[in-house]
Amino acid sequence: MSQTEKLKPAARVTGQRQDVWSIVNEAALASPIQPVVNMGQGFFGYNPPPFILDAARSALERVECNQYSPTKGRPRLKKAIADAYSPFWGRKLDPETEVTITTGANEGMLSAFMAFIEQGDEVVIFEPFFDQYISNIEMPGGKIVYVPMHPPASGATKTSSAGEWTIDFNELEKAITPRTKMMVINTPHNPVGKVYSKEELQRIGDICLKNDIIILSDEVYDRLYYVPFTRIATLSPDIENITITVGSAGKNFYATGWRVGWLMGPSHLIKYVSAAHTRICYSSVSPLQEACAIGFEQADANGFWDQAVTDMKRKMDRFNAVWPELDLPFSDPEGGYFVLVNMSKVQIPEDYNFPPHVASRPRDFKLCWFMIQEFGLAAIPPTEFYTDANAHIVEDYMRFAVCKPDDVLETAKERLRGLRKYLKE
Amino acid sequence: MSQTEKLKPAARVTGQRQDVWSIVNEAALASPIQPVVNMGQGFFGYNPPPFILDAARSALERVECNQYSPTKGRPRLKKAIADAYSPFWGRKLDPETEVTITTGANEGMLSAFMAFIEQGDEVVIFEPFFDQYISNIEMPGGKIVYVPMHPPASGATKTSSAGEWTIDFNELEKAITPRTKMMVINTPHNPVGKVYSKEELQRIGDICLKNDIIILSDEVYDRLYYVPFTRIATLSPDIENITITVGSAGKNFYATGWRVGWLMGPSHLIKYVSAAHTRICYSSVSPLQEACAIGFEQADANGFWDQAVTDMKRKMDRFNAVWPELDLPFSDPEGGYFVLVNMSKVQIPEDYNFPPHVASRPRDFKLCWFMIQEFGLAAIPPTEFYTDANAHIVEDYMRFAVCKPDDVLETAKERLRGLRKYLKE
Repeated sequence: MSQTEKLKPAARVTGQRQDVWSIVNEAALASPIQPVVNMGQGFFGYNPPPFILDAARSALERVECNQYSPTKGRPRLKKAIADAYSPFWGRKLDPETEVTITTGANEGMLSAFMAFIEQGDEVVIFEPFFDQYISNIEMPGGKIVYVPMHPPASGATKTSSAGEWTIDFNELEKAITPRTKMMVINTPHNPVGKVYSKEELQRIGDICLKNDIIILSDEVYDRLYYVPFTRIATLSPDIENITITVGSAGKNFYATGWRVGWLMGPSHLIKYVSAAHTRICYSSVSPLQEACAIGFEQADANGFWDQAVTDMKRKMDRFNAVWPELDLPFSDPEGGYFVLVNMSKVQIPEDYNFPPHVASRPRDFKLCWFMIQEFGLAAIPPTEFYTDANAHIVEDYMRFAVCKPDDVLETAKERLRGLRKYLKE
Repeated sequence: MSQTEKLKPAARVTGQRQDVWSIVNEAALASPIQPVVNMGQGFFGYNPPPFILDAARSALERVECNQYSPTKGRPRLKKAIADAYSPFWGRKLDPETEVTITTGANEGMLSAFMAFIEQGDEVVIFEPFFDQYISNIEMPGGKIVYVPMHPPASGATKTSSAGEWTIDFNELEKAITPRTKMMVINTPHNPVGKVYSKEELQRIGDICLKNDIIILSDEVYDRLYYVPFTRIATLSPDIENITITVGSAGKNFYATGWRVGWLMGPSHLIKYVSAAHTRICYSSVSPLQEACAIGFEQADANGFWDQAVTDMKRKMDRFNAVWPELDLPFSDPEGGYFVLVNMSKVQIPEDYNFPPHVASRPRDFKLCWFMIQEFGLAAIPPTEFYTDANAHIVEDYMRFAVCKPDDVLETAKERLRGLRKYLKE
């Protein structure tokens, strides 16, 4: 049937090119090697720990845990989060005014943008960015201003710490205008694996203070760091006063499908985030909020946070052992579960045949397609997380997610060894 | 600390008066009678049936059920919904293109508005309305045009069917302008309890067809009807072509805290709803999607849908038996779990003391406060669901939710008998 002009969709949902996730999924389906090993998307290849699953099961027994929760979140979860984070803040956080629960960190960040961004307000984000930021900022009418992170100059030849990816603070200062309303930072960083240093965060905080910019600090990987980790909100009361910190039970508890997140910050900011969240999702999933509350209450006693770091670092090192074998340099992560590998040495045969929607994208999309077809291994091309103007910065890199069972990591390594015959000397 | 001009919130989250839910909750906390019996909010006072809770527990065991689901929903749930609704549509629904899963019906409706409403587009809704419609329409910049439903003329003196609440079709036609993009209908209706007749839906459908208006049909109470129920999308292929139907697992399976909803409709509309949902919540809660899929697969075999109708109708009749005792007329519901009762005969003592935020609202807010303080019984004042201009239409009514255990219904009735001494002859 024909669609009249009046039934047409709003501009905000039209006209985007195919996203990386569907390109990778389609490529995986088309691969002659099945099943494809998926090191692309950052879902866990294993379950949340038993004490949290037990908590979820017991929540399902209780009538009030299956019905609406308060829009700002279940009091038990807000208290558990306030208690868990108070030691980092060095003071008692108020669960009623300084914590609000959202439907995953993703909807939490949308709620923050909806709470503060008016048409034409500017938001500074760093490249590479988490792709959902873009639509979340544009939905309330925000204008995005991009500042690139720069890989180490020797990234194509030498493995070095992910901490060597840097911000050019001159570029950052130049990006700020009188319309700059918010700045988004992400630490530990996806996909770079960088944990911002205290000094870097202090400079960012000072810039935001000077310009009255709200800091939205995406800290969803906050329990996975392999170097000292600083939370920007804890640097000073003045910085705390302009900072909203984002957390994720999905990332913390290996349950990306649970859709429980939270935002913490001063009450004069959080109250508007709560108001926006109520208008978006009304309330968030009750039994899994309850399970996460119990998760926070019991995590320390179970040694879970320490175990999570130990386990992920071991996975990271196990997987990354393959790169020296291949003499491919990588950015050794300081946190999170992603690793960026530089593949400039990989030579794709000149006559290799790419479908048009891959051929038209930067080299990393071709590497991605090539590895899926030739080795049955999926990873993510990071130019997706840059603007076209800056995409060249990472067109030789690939992102791998190591939050997978050890046998999957070993299979992935074995498949990667197939790259040997395509390496430049 | 002072808040600078630049840290101020967006207009969309400011300046609303206190909502009815927080007024009722605060009033309940202030009541001398504790605990207050809550017949206000429409959460269930009992658990989902065992076969669905079992499904949720078993989903929690499975790694893939705890991780991200596809943004459009789990294939198993989309298929289960397509299979469950195909008989009503009289053809096979395509689960991949005609069903999309959302984070509750609420976020589903927001997704629909985000998909189609541009700044200044108009949306027609009927009063009384579900209060979340307002912010959901305003968020993408929509302008709301209100058309009141009218209670039966004898509503203050005589019990009659909720079906006797009517739309004035002249008023409806006058509300339509060249900017009218969408119309929202709700059947079975909250709070009226009306099930729109086939004839009424045909007239609405014809008006929308003539004017190229997208119909958003909120059918979240679609499994609870006590008279024949018509789905507007099934009236004709032309009407189906412009209709998005909203469903709710929370309402269907007694789990309002699960946040699983869906939208069904022609692919040329649903694809944009999916795109908006992805930008809002990314994906929806995985283990409970899986549980709802199993719920749909097994509901018929378990006789669940029939039992749900029988059980709710019995609760409705059990509770409403108190009104003839008090000689208070009510609108006998044709569907759903709410009942509107006309309390024009209740005389609140003239010197009764109301707090200012209640004193400034219509009579139903005073009735609400009075019943909570004097009898420890909470119900919802329905003027909250009307514009100020039309609030007078329902200022003598109160809304009660009967989705509560039988002992709660009996306690509520006993408390309501306290109204006797306040009744006009």
